[in-house]
Amino acid sequence: MPPQPSIPTTQWAQVCPKVGGPVEYKQIPVPKPDHDEVLVNIKYSGVCHTDLHAMNGDWPLPVKMPLVGGHEGVGTVVARGDLVTHVELGEQVGVKWLNGSCLACDFCEGADESLCEKAILSGYTVDGTFQQYCLGKAAHVTPIPKGVKLDEVAPVLCAGITVYKGLKESRAEPGQVVAIVGAGGGLGSLAQQYAKAMGLQVIAIDGGEEKGELCKRLGAEAYVDFTKTKDLVADVKAHSPDGLGPHAVLLVAAAELPFQQATGYVRSRGTIVAIGLPAHAQLKAPVFDTVVRMITIRGSYVGNRLDGKEAVDFFRRGLINVPIKVVPLSELGNVFNLMKEGKIAGRYVLKMPE
Amino acid sequence: MPPQPSIPTTQWAQVCPKVGGPVEYKQIPVPKPDHDEVLVNIKYSGVCHTDLHAMNGDWPLPVKMPLVGGHEGVGTVVARGDLVTHVELGEQVGVKWLNGSCLACDFCEGADESLCEKAILSGYTVDGTFQQYCLGKAAHVTPIPKGVKLDEVAPVLCAGITVYKGLKESRAEPGQVVAIVGAGGGLGSLAQQYAKAMGLQVIAIDGGEEKGELCKRLGAEAYVDFTKTKDLVADVKAHSPDGLGPHAVLLVAAAELPFQQATGYVRSRGTIVAIGLPAHAQLKAPVFDTVVRMITIRGSYVGNRLDGKEAVDFFRRGLINVPIKVVPLSELGNVFNLMKEGKIAGRYVLKMPE
Amino acid sequence: MPPQPSIPTTQWAQVCPKVGGPVEYKQIPVPKPDHDEVLVNIKYSGVCHTDLHAMNGDWPLPVKMPLVGGHEGVGTVVARGDLVTHVELGEQVGVKWLNGSCLACDFCEGADESLCEKAILSGYTVDGTFQQYCLGKAAHVTPIPKGVKLDEVAPVLCAGITVYKGLKESRAEPGQVVAIVGAGGGLGSLAQQYAKAMGLQVIAIDGGEEKGELCKRLGAEAYVDFTKTKDLVADVKAHSPDGLGPHAVLLVAAAELPFQQATGYVRSRGTIVAIGLPAHAQLKAPVFDTVVRMITIRGSYVGNRLDGKEAVDFFRRGLINVPIKVVPLSELGNVFNLMKEGKIAGRYVLKMPE
Amino acid sequence: MPPQPSIPTTQWAQVCPKVGGPVEYKQIPVPKPDHDEVLVNIKYSGVCHTDLHAMNGDWPLPVKMPLVGGHEGVGTVVARGDLVTHVELGEQVGVKWLNGSCLACDFCEGADESLCEKAILSGYTVDGTFQQYCLGKAAHVTPIPKGVKLDEVAPVLCAGITVYKGLKESRAEPGQVVAIVGAGGGLGSLAQQYAKAMGLQVIAIDGGEEKGELCKRLGAEAYVDFTKTKDLVADVKAHSPDGLGPHAVLLVAAAELPFQQATGYVRSRGTIVAIGLPAHAQLKAPVFDTVVRMITIRGSYVGNRLDGKEAVDFFRRGLINVPIKVVPLSELGNVFNLMKEGKIAGRYVLKMPE
Repeated sequence: MPPQPSIPTTQWAQVCPKVGGPVEYKQIPVPKPDHDEVLVNIKYSGVCHTDLHAMNGDWPLPVKMPLVGGHEGVGTVVARGDLVTHVELGEQVGVKWLNGSCLACDFCEGADESLCEKAILSGYTVDGTFQQYCLGKAAHVTPIPKGVKLDEVAPVLCAGITVYKGLKESRAEPGQVVAIVGAGGGLGSLAQQYAKAMGLQVIAIDGGEEKGELCKRLGAEAYVDFTKTKDLVADVKAHSPDGLGPHAVLLVAAAELPFQQATGYVRSRGTIVAIGLPAHAQLKAPVFDTVVRMITIRGSYVGNRLDGKEAVDFFRRGLINVPIKVVPLSELGNVFNLMKEGKIAGRYVLKMPE
Repeated sequence: MPPQPSIPTTQWAQVCPKVGGPVEYKQIPVPKPDHDEVLVNIKYSGVCHTDLHAMNGDWPLPVKMPLVGGHEGVGTVVARGDLVTHVELGEQVGVKWLNGSCLACDFCEGADESLCEKAILSGYTVDGTFQQYCLGKAAHVTPIPKGVKLDEVAPVLCAGITVYKGLKESRAEPGQVVAIVGAGGGLGSLAQQYAKAMGLQVIAIDGGEEKGELCKRLGAEAYVDFTKTKDLVADVKAHSPDGLGPHAVLLVAAAELPFQQATGYVRSRGTIVAIGLPAHAQLKAPVFDTVVRMITIRGSYVGNRLDGKEAVDFFRRGLINVPIKVVPLSELGNVFNLMKEGKIAGRYVLKMPE
Repeated sequence: MPPQPSIPTTQWAQVCPKVGGPVEYKQIPVPKPDHDEVLVNIKYSGVCHTDLHAMNGDWPLPVKMPLVGGHEGVGTVVARGDLVTHVELGEQVGVKWLNGSCLACDFCEGADESLCEKAILSGYTVDGTFQQYCLGKAAHVTPIPKGVKLDEVAPVLCAGITVYKGLKESRAEPGQVVAIVGAGGGLGSLAQQYAKAMGLQVIAIDGGEEKGELCKRLGAEAYVDFTKTKDLVADVKAHSPDGLGPHAVLLVAAAELPFQQATGYVRSRGTIVAIGLPAHAQLKAPVFDTVVRMITIRGSYVGNRLDGKEAVDFFRRGLINVPIKVVPLSELGNVFNLMKEGKIAGRYVLKMPE
Repeated sequence: MPPQPSIPTTQWAQVCPKVGGPVEYKQIPVPKPDHDEVLVNIKYSGVCHTDLHAMNGDWPLPVKMPLVGGHEGVGTVVARGDLVTHVELGEQVGVKWLNGSCLACDFCEGADESLCEKAILSGYTVDGTFQQYCLGKAAHVTPIPKGVKLDEVAPVLCAGITVYKGLKESRAEPGQVVAIVGAGGGLGSLAQQYAKAMGLQVIAIDGGEEKGELCKRLGAEAYVDFTKTKDLVADVKAHSPDGLGPHAVLLVAAAELPFQQATGYVRSRGTIVAIGLPAHAQLKAPVFDTVVRMITIRGSYVGNRLDGKEAVDFFRRGLINVPIKVVPLSELGNVFNLMKEGKIAGRYVLKMPE
């Protein structure tokens, strides 16, 4: 255990005082860990669209206010409750969306803790990682192995786990083909890398030449440009090795039209996985085709704790490249503004003050 | 091998001369088996709604005309092609919906022969079981063990396999809870019996007191009457032992409203299985809930050959009771009329002339 | 919440002072729950062979001394730590073999908490249920639904879970055939009942007519008497419906000869599950046959927390009958003596003093 | 369809006249395909140790004599029976160990055709690929996509499928760790490449520096040299990322000592897969450890037809490199001699006369 820094009583944080924001950059008290918690000295935190939803309170889940947002934080454990034995002071950990859960309901016991009805959510129902010192339930923090770049791994804790889980839920097996819809975006390009690391072949679907080049660079077997194709369904099927369509489809941001198309080109017996949480979108499919072709449609939310460790391990091995832009914590307001304007490519990561 | 009856050159059959019908009861030639086929002397054949669809040609799959319908036939093998070694003359077999398939595509090789693009369908793309002598691909006929009642087992070959497969596709495990929507109907009451034989607990959903009594008699843990409940979703959840909803839902005849309700009451991480082929129905679900609750929606068509053997084995063991009404083959026209008028409860089974 | 009884400061317990015993019936202090623990007022506790192993210290796992044994206890929660929210005072719970685990290692996170390297074991590494007031980690106690008979459910918490888990690990599916070796014994007769409740067909294997009658009474499809058969392998195969052998074998007490026989009669692609912990027994099988027939051999230990709830739910539904003999806690020494002499049929359950 | 060459009436073949050999290089008649067969003009055939076993008749399976051996053949379909529709004349296919099966028993129907009791085996129970024109059941030949190198793909049809199937049977998931025992040998080096293509991390176990260098070149995360380690079990565990041992072990040639070691270092809940068919080797493991650690031991034979297509597809994508040495068909006797002397590294492939 390295020598421990002394813990201050106040710290810098970005606080959202009320629904709608804006966030305020100011000093607040450093919290103390409960018996089963750790206090993490955050070094970096990614910024996710969900953080904007939290500030705006526009999701069908009640949000805590005032709120310190953020759920992609990495740092060092500086204090822990007396029941905590498996995390050491000085250890590097990540604080992710699922801050804690009851650990004793059927879902928790069955390794589906994200479905726990008592789950607490970082930067949403409890204060999150847009502060220097953040609490996390010890059983839920994600160990970050030594040598891993802390700024780059931050977005893996949300975006990475989410796409990795979605790919696992597709039940596609190594060597099979997965179509990724929105393959050239932030989540999509992560999904492509995870898919490849898992031994899958990727058909990338997105719009425009620039994204096509990105997809090819990331190792996609084929790229289908929805702005150019005259028959998306036929084109996607044609790019699967036997013409029967991809074994699975990952809808990075499920919306109605792409979903309809996916039911057309997915292989019989294949699986369409919807991730992402557009507020009012609907899934819609004809019963006849779904039945006769035995199609599976599955929603995938966030990963469990093991998924988190696994997603980080793929990153540790150098298989996942996360394009980030690092700015100081004080810049969060500006990042949110860029996000609202749709001007963000890649992922912004906040650096905490030293 | 018992002494073989001589095979006549002509036989009685119900022939549909053109789309729209009606069927004609008349003599036609007895066909001869190809190298890989058996000729089955049919004793009984069930009548299914699909037979009416075939006659009416109102499904999005082209139908053979003129056509001998029927796909729930049982009888005795009286001739076989020279490549056939695993079925003996005199053996009892069933001829089901899937008359044959290529046995060499990815789907056939993976035990999903019902998805084979070259599949041939009894009483639809090839002549079926509404005749005394019917051809079947030897690899696809279902062995019927000795001692099994031939008239009662006939509907197992279609209705039984279909609900059994649907329950398997739900991935519900013994001890878990499955809601069956339409539990008091023909398919539904079979589904309840299979579910119970598979160790599942059943929440039966249907309308009216008479159906409620039937469901209780069949062993349902609870009955929810949709004609009386004020909050179907809440009622179904309340009847699951822990209040979190059933692990799986079997939609015997998927339609939009019941499907919407099922997405409301199914347990998080649960599976909704749609069987049945209503021509224009749509599945529709909100993305947000499907994702956050990780719901799976799956279409289930007909079983594979193993499913067929298994479904028959449950029947052989006396665990499945099939209410049937036996009439002569000559009566098919009347059965179709009753079916059109919606006047059929249970299953009609045709007895072939001796 | 019913009115809570006041908690005394001392209680009756059976204490084993040192390896080898004997146990002493005496008054000891009532312990206090830690933040994450509950204090359970035990009503009944089963006695298991493992308790004898614990007293004798003859297993390759170090045992706590002095020790209060017992790991099949049921009672009422009378106190709880401040972190406990999901278990209420007055609730009925069971304390089982796995008293607690770290809840944060890969095994715990993956629902295999029995493999946790920091697991604590009731009546072995921590004090157990042979006392009036026993501690349990709140996340690990098993809820006991109202209306369940507390004396009969006690053995379900160890013996029941163990055989139920073994059957799950066999991956046998409803309708398939499982051979149970030692079917007429205590574990075996429970296994038969769980197998039947799970939709499995049972071939019971044991010795003697009395056991044969018991097995038939419990619903076995066939009974093979190893004291009479001239070819056990052939006989077991003959009793599987298609002659290819059972899909799975449950070896209630794995020893070398029965294991060798099981590799002979298990169906190709089948699974042999070993439960029970004979100290020095070896599994041994020829590579050639194991490979060519693709046989799986699997060890199954105790269930996880969900398995515990499920095993209790089968009991709640009246599907499992546990033959017990109830004696006062003070009689434990005599029960151990009978056990050493091999004179116990069924299960002894200790009743705590009021 | 390219223009078809005319089929001669006689051809060159290597014929083993009686058990013990030697093989004779001579002219024999060209066979004619049955209704469900294809005639394949073989271009290349690999030589496998099994071919030596066939000639020597030293396996516990009866062998046809006189025999044309060989079961790793690739070539072009030049004739087909009248029932064959899914394979075209001129198509490239492979003829593998499993020449045909009944396609209608439970194993065939469940995609485990290698367990079919009526399976026919190329170069063992029927004539194989050491001839210019070889018969194969049409449903069992493996399509070879255009552009694939025919000489290199030949060994994939046996060695490749076998190790690929073994890895699938291990149930190891992408990102997990598999130990390969015998990693530097012919099967082992193929296994390493398949493992990597499937997203697995490899701990290679073998003896000597040369093999260690090969394993590192093939991408192994770690190499454990059994000729140097003082504690193999500890070393292998130390090389797994979390020290808990590999999730799976592939025993390329199961023998007693390596098997014992594997039960020591495999992760709890892990799987040990035995492939290869040493005549008299035994698997042996202590019951206590196997149960408490919930270890699975599984035999894996050859793949099914889908496994064959998949194994070839990995090769097609350039992920598998097979070191071969090509010699004329006439040289088979010499190859067998080298094999007996243990002088073969890599795989010999026979080139048929033009």
